[in-house]
Amino acid sequence: MRKTTDRDTAGGTGGPARERLLVIGGDAAGMSAASQARRRRGAGELEILVVERGHHVSYSACGIPYYVGGVVDELDKLIARTPAEFRERDIDVMMRTEAVEIDLDRGRVRVRDLDGGGERWEPYDHLMIATGAVPTRPRLPGADAKGVHGVQILDDGVAIRRAVVDDGARRAVVVGGGYIGLEMAEAMVMRGLEVSLVDLADQPMQTLDPDMGALVADAIRDVGVQLHLGEPVEGFDTSPDGRVTAVRTGSRTLPADIVVLGLGVKPASGLARDAGIEVGPTGGIVTDRRMRTRTERVWAAGDCVESRHLVSGGPVAIPLGTHANKQGRVAGINLGGGYATFPGVAGTAVSKICRVEVARTGLSEREAAAAGFETLSAVVKSTTRAGYHPGATEMRTKLIVERRTGRLLGAQIVGEENAAKRVDGLAIALWNGMTVEEMTGLDLGYAPPFAPTWDPVLIAARKAAEAVERDMRERPGE
Amino acid sequence: MRKTTDRDTAGGTGGPARERLLVIGGDAAGMSAASQARRRRGAGELEILVVERGHHVSYSACGIPYYVGGVVDELDKLIARTPAEFRERDIDVMMRTEAVEIDLDRGRVRVRDLDGGGERWEPYDHLMIATGAVPTRPRLPGADAKGVHGVQILDDGVAIRRAVVDDGARRAVVVGGGYIGLEMAEAMVMRGLEVSLVDLADQPMQTLDPDMGALVADAIRDVGVQLHLGEPVEGFDTSPDGRVTAVRTGSRTLPADIVVLGLGVKPASGLARDAGIEVGPTGGIVTDRRMRTRTERVWAAGDCVESRHLVSGGPVAIPLGTHANKQGRVAGINLGGGYATFPGVAGTAVSKICRVEVARTGLSEREAAAAGFETLSAVVKSTTRAGYHPGATEMRTKLIVERRTGRLLGAQIVGEENAAKRVDGLAIALWNGMTVEEMTGLDLGYAPPFAPTWDPVLIAARKAAEAVERDMRERPGE
Repeated sequence: MRKTTDRDTAGGTGGPARERLLVIGGDAAGMSAASQARRRRGAGELEILVVERGHHVSYSACGIPYYVGGVVDELDKLIARTPAEFRERDIDVMMRTEAVEIDLDRGRVRVRDLDGGGERWEPYDHLMIATGAVPTRPRLPGADAKGVHGVQILDDGVAIRRAVVDDGARRAVVVGGGYIGLEMAEAMVMRGLEVSLVDLADQPMQTLDPDMGALVADAIRDVGVQLHLGEPVEGFDTSPDGRVTAVRTGSRTLPADIVVLGLGVKPASGLARDAGIEVGPTGGIVTDRRMRTRTERVWAAGDCVESRHLVSGGPVAIPLGTHANKQGRVAGINLGGGYATFPGVAGTAVSKICRVEVARTGLSEREAAAAGFETLSAVVKSTTRAGYHPGATEMRTKLIVERRTGRLLGAQIVGEENAAKRVDGLAIALWNGMTVEEMTGLDLGYAPPFAPTWDPVLIAARKAAEAVERDMRERPGE
Repeated sequence: MRKTTDRDTAGGTGGPARERLLVIGGDAAGMSAASQARRRRGAGELEILVVERGHHVSYSACGIPYYVGGVVDELDKLIARTPAEFRERDIDVMMRTEAVEIDLDRGRVRVRDLDGGGERWEPYDHLMIATGAVPTRPRLPGADAKGVHGVQILDDGVAIRRAVVDDGARRAVVVGGGYIGLEMAEAMVMRGLEVSLVDLADQPMQTLDPDMGALVADAIRDVGVQLHLGEPVEGFDTSPDGRVTAVRTGSRTLPADIVVLGLGVKPASGLARDAGIEVGPTGGIVTDRRMRTRTERVWAAGDCVESRHLVSGGPVAIPLGTHANKQGRVAGINLGGGYATFPGVAGTAVSKICRVEVARTGLSEREAAAAGFETLSAVVKSTTRAGYHPGATEMRTKLIVERRTGRLLGAQIVGEENAAKRVDGLAIALWNGMTVEEMTGLDLGYAPPFAPTWDPVLIAARKAAEAVERDMRERPGE
């Protein structure tokens, strides 16, 4: 810790008083922070208390669709560590305990026992906010009815699996065609349900450009999901006992035993905002590179914060377990007296819908335009392996580049086996500000089982470089 | 073309005389160069003649093991384009025609008709040397016997397949445990042969560090190949009609119906050297970034040239189809009046031996030491997918970093499905001079079917960064 506060005595000259780190939220960010802080500061020096409102800590929310679909059979497999395991490492965890108010002046948090019902104040010397995100719910009648599920915490996964497997739901409607919506749609198809997916947009996967999103739409239709695109949801019908029975769109009524919301999530920053901790334009808590908020002694990490996008330079809130883990680790190292930074995000994401692999990084064309870039793009169709090698499948790679400079701004991949993870190389290329011309020379792994002589990434770079050159010839740059 | 030579009239003021590009060698480098030059300069302006000593042009030599093993059934599948297809694009190809002398003073090449037997001189205005490489043969009695095969051109693949499939070879000995040796050993196991592999070194795959090479040794033993490591080959027994019958090592005599040499290849630079064209310490022809040799009007590309290693800074000769294609393309663009450069190589390579995927990039520990680096390393064992996701397999990732700076110098991967191509991201990271500390923040694709929350690359970067930090504490840097 920096030695700028009176209360932070860890760096003082006398024997340090035992400090207390209070962590709100026990998933990836919170527990990573707690673990890293503990590695650096023993229990005699730093007390660590985690409050978690759910039934689980340290789990993989990203695994929920696989648990619902039966790809993963036991809930325990999604849980990296139990509260008991953390307690063995001198990290105290209070389950079913919700933080309801932060009192910055007195350095304490009011918590509520969700099962017992009581409330009390817990003091802190250092506060770590890792409250995650909340699923976006449409402001429509019936949106809070029984049977309408968000997908955020492990308890959501348990509830959906119970509805789908044990309670015999037959018809499901997914509202929203992002990653989670598509993965949940596929999971429920695997369970034998009739699944419809409704999205206001003309394509699923809005994080892709429309041409690439259309490929994903084809794939999800092939799985057997009924797609209703360009249709706003107007309401939810409910039974007298308050259960959802149908989803009404502008064009139709879709009977539903279960509704899954895939409308994205919002940073759960209300608690911080109410306390006066700065929240940014994305709704995420503002932190510096070390994951410190603008408020003394308060740190934040995970889905509740906003990050800097390394290509646009602007703030973004991207809820993703891998960021939460990294940010939590960074916060924990700094809380433990070390130095670490979280540089920002590149917007990388991958997903698998049945056989189809989808990946993206950087900015889409729309995002690039919003950030003020003029762009060019190249889309190439090629194979994942040498064309003659068994198992070679077709993949589409799209690169989005800045005019004139030829700098790589974004990339998207839609393909099958062995396609999507190529996005890592593209993410590292744009992280380093490479131009597509430079990328044509990259030394990527080549052997027939892994790539054609020209890897799809290289072919795409060549085509994009040609587009930049053509644009220079044909259109004035200055 | 630069306008520095009298004979180069393309940039002159009058109507240009028709020039002639003579290409020696019709595989990846030569045909890429020819194609790119043709795209930029029509047949009325530039005549293009390719001489090729073999029976095929534009083929995938890397596919030979798959053709021998039966993974690829037809030879035609390994051939990207036939001579007839090139002729349609006004690229003249003379098959079974070997260049035997370059006369720089008069701008001509003496060629021999390998079937007809005659010789003649072919003039050139621009000469492209793409003579490839020749398999290293031990200077031992019997090394040139019938039944001892190198693996370099497609004709070698045809001969080996004939021996293995049609002529009923039962016992094979592979000499040398590099990529080609291992891939050929596996291919012959697939054909039901008893296969032994002899290598002077204590581990196969010398391009890996010993700890990683040992994992490959285990894998190749599991396939059923008898490994005899640390054994020098001392000679080859032959029958009275000059066929190989056994391989003698320091410790044993291995009966053999067929012997495959996997001792690597050397740049086929003799023709150039004899003409006085500069050849470097690796035995490869020296070129600049545009693939021009030090000799006016002479270009070179592919396995016959040496390249700059982007990490060591030194010259290397790395025979690989992907480099040959890139270099040929660069030469052809420049020959056609454009501008393109080949920046160098990072030493990236991938291979698959049965289920085991192997990858490397940058420098091994030994190579790094030879280049004057002091290094640290980290090896991590992790899974290719989220641990709970079906199909998750174990992979080992090793990073080699420079002391103090923490700059990534090299990486090695041994694993199973979906492991090896992660080397691309590592290759791009070291291409850009990233430190492992910087790499810990990289935004790589995460979803359960593709990676654990912490991708193996990130875990390895963290461990390597810790090693750098520990080294700083414990050992003086200055």
